Amino acid sequence: MLKLYFTPATCSLASHIALEESGARYEVQRVDFSRQEQRSPEFLRVNPKGRVPALVTDDGVLTETPAILAYIGQSFPGSPIGVPSDPFAFARIQSFNSYLCSTVHVAHAHKRRGSRWADDPAAIEAMTLKVASNMSDCFELIETDMFAGPWVMGETYSIADPYLFTLAGWLEGDGVDPARFPKVLDHRRRMAERPAVKKVLAALEG
Amino acid sequence: MLKLYFTPATCSLASHIALEESGARYEVQRVDFSRQEQRSPEFLRVNPKGRVPALVTDDGVLTETPAILAYIGQSFPGSPIGVPSDPFAFARIQSFNSYLCSTVHVAHAHKRRGSRWADDPAAIEAMTLKVASNMSDCFELIETDMFAGPWVMGETYSIADPYLFTLAGWLEGDGVDPARFPKVLDHRRRMAERPAVKKVLAALEG
Ligand SMILES: N[C@@H](CCC(=O)N[C@@H](CS)C(=O)NCC(=O)O)C(=O)O
Ligand SMILES: N[C@@H](CCC(=O)N[C@@H](CS)C(=O)NCC(=O)O)C(=O)O
Repeated sequence: MLKLYFTPATCSLASHIALEESGARYEVQRVDFSRQEQRSPEFLRVNPKGRVPALVTDDGVLTETPAILAYIGQSFPGSPIGVPSDPFAFARIQSFNSYLCSTVHVAHAHKRRGSRWADDPAAIEAMTLKVASNMSDCFELIETDMFAGPWVMGETYSIADPYLFTLAGWLEGDGVDPARFPKVLDHRRRMAERPAVKKVLAALEG
Repeated sequence: MLKLYFTPATCSLASHIALEESGARYEVQRVDFSRQEQRSPEFLRVNPKGRVPALVTDDGVLTETPAILAYIGQSFPGSPIGVPSDPFAFARIQSFNSYLCSTVHVAHAHKRRGSRWADDPAAIEAMTLKVASNMSDCFELIETDMFAGPWVMGETYSIADPYLFTLAGWLEGDGVDPARFPKVLDHRRRMAERPAVKKVLAALEG
């Protein structure tokens, strides 16, 4: 059975929703950041990077959100998050998710994880000051150029949707008013109404 | 015909090599960073992010290295960089490439592109000081946990190989001695001997 290592309020939410949408049988295991469990020897044996998400499959462990999402999408082709077999259609999804992973998530991470990229406390503080404008720029680009609507890729819901939903949920905390991005905000509302999303969010609260 | 927008000595090298390995017919167009061409109105119409690589296909433009590589791999299945159809085998490749894109490339970018994440010159300077140790940590993980050998994924050459080759080429410039990572160094040497890599490197110098 698939097993997802997750932490509430992190990017692992995207993989969690995708699993729920896929109809797969899966279990979840919480990694408690407040106890630094992501750096425990037990967890580092699962994912030597010390990060969530990590998905344990019968074939081995997968890490990195875009890879986990693609795996779920390819493994459950008939489900709502099944991925297209056409290389271009699939690459468009991967491109969107890669942008979220390498640019948007990284922009956000400079708020709380600045110590990854500098040791000087003043530098870490300086990074936090730029997070709101960087996240705004990213979502401006998503709103204007990347979001097809009604779902990220257009008419068809895909693995890009839970990932955008997850990162768009960070806007307020990053000091950005989501009302500036009406399409993204509307997407967030519609996502929150999906049964799979409701179920995952309820499980995280419970 | 496929058309790759590239800049020498950037991550676009990975896509360039993959195109050459695929046997595809393609053309290339240089984006001159010294003239800020990546921010020109013409190029922003191709890629509103203002970055290379961008791959123009008959179906539209693709950006983001992991997506471009997956597209080439899926489009030319019989070639040396054709990707496996098994979801787990494919996801392992995507996971490796996603790590390069979201963590290794980003660690490197803090050397010359620190102004993306802070405005204060002292903070930007502080970021450059941590690049060598961050790149070392990344390549330590690759050497120890991720690199199967003789190719990244094991016996079979894949789209992960040109991407690793590209980023491993940045080590010296980032103040890291590649001799600390014998498997990666050996991989770099064997990559440089491949006809496709030789051809691309010669074209970039010419
Ligand atoms: N590129 C990875 C990033 C994973 C990541 O950074 N996860 C964060 C949570 S959003 C984490 O585990 N942080 C723990 C830490 O930095 O100690 C992905 O997309 O899965
Ligand atoms: N996540 C993108 C990153 C692309 C990227 O940052 N490219 C750099 C060159 S390595 C660039 O175009 N920089 C130009 C600039 O920042 O102005 C990818 O993997 O393709």
